[in-house]
Amino acid sequence: MKARSVPFDALKVGDESSFIREVTEGDVRAFAQLSGDTNPVHLDEDYAAQTPFKGRIVHGTILNAHVSAALATKLPGPGTIYLEASLRFRKPARIGDVLSTHLQVTEKIEDKKFVRLSVEVRNQDHIVLATGLALVIPPPKSEEIVLADRP
Amino acid sequence: MKARSVPFDALKVGDESSFIREVTEGDVRAFAQLSGDTNPVHLDEDYAAQTPFKGRIVHGTILNAHVSAALATKLPGPGTIYLEASLRFRKPARIGDVLSTHLQVTEKIEDKKFVRLSVEVRNQDHIVLATGLALVIPPPKSEEIVLADRP
Repeated sequence: MKARSVPFDALKVGDESSFIREVTEGDVRAFAQLSGDTNPVHLDEDYAAQTPFKGRIVHGTILNAHVSAALATKLPGPGTIYLEASLRFRKPARIGDVLSTHLQVTEKIEDKKFVRLSVEVRNQDHIVLATGLALVIPPPKSEEIVLADRP
Repeated sequence: MKARSVPFDALKVGDESSFIREVTEGDVRAFAQLSGDTNPVHLDEDYAAQTPFKGRIVHGTILNAHVSAALATKLPGPGTIYLEASLRFRKPARIGDVLSTHLQVTEKIEDKKFVRLSVEVRNQDHIVLATGLALVIPPPKSEEIVLADRP
């Protein structure tokens, strides 16, 4: 996959992009393994059935992971440095959900060359699952970069 | 591994806990795979060598993942529901760093039964890599839960 890096000077308030990705059973297992987050609400169907969610839910931080991917592959693109992440989890994602992470540039901080973006994550039914903000340093120059498909 | 769930009524402002975990090469690859974040600053040594970091850095969201694990396995423990995550990335983590994620209860929101915690992530040299806040719903009751070692 190729992606274009958009440097600070080329970004405009209002620029937007979306990143679409399914959350699979394997993603939840891999996230639990790499993080050490073995919360039974994510892994244990019997435990999760007793909660108000009435079944397993996806780790909220997997939504943060999609935001990170959206920044790195869509806007501002490869080479972006993530400075600050905030995300409010409004409704749970379920395994098999196809999430759409929408980014929009809301502020250019001229003296520091930082950019702030709003974040909204929706599921395939257009339900808003999470909203937040990201502060980043955009990539240093405009270039097309070939990204690893299977890291 | 066993972990104890601490419900709202048993939590006190000032309660604290730490979660320690190494970030491995495999974690970075697994994170890239599950998120789709194939930013070359994390995966491509040649690209990363040209950045101000002079080498590959760990995805910031892996620090969020450790925070999630700290909440789920340490304080308030298994069954915790993550409502809001904010994290400021101050210095990059490197592959092989052993991160210590420290949580402290800063506020109990009585009417909603939510709890706010401060978050600080340090590396093995005690350098602060990230600071932030977490808002959670603690587990419903005090219980000891056996967590999956290999999800």
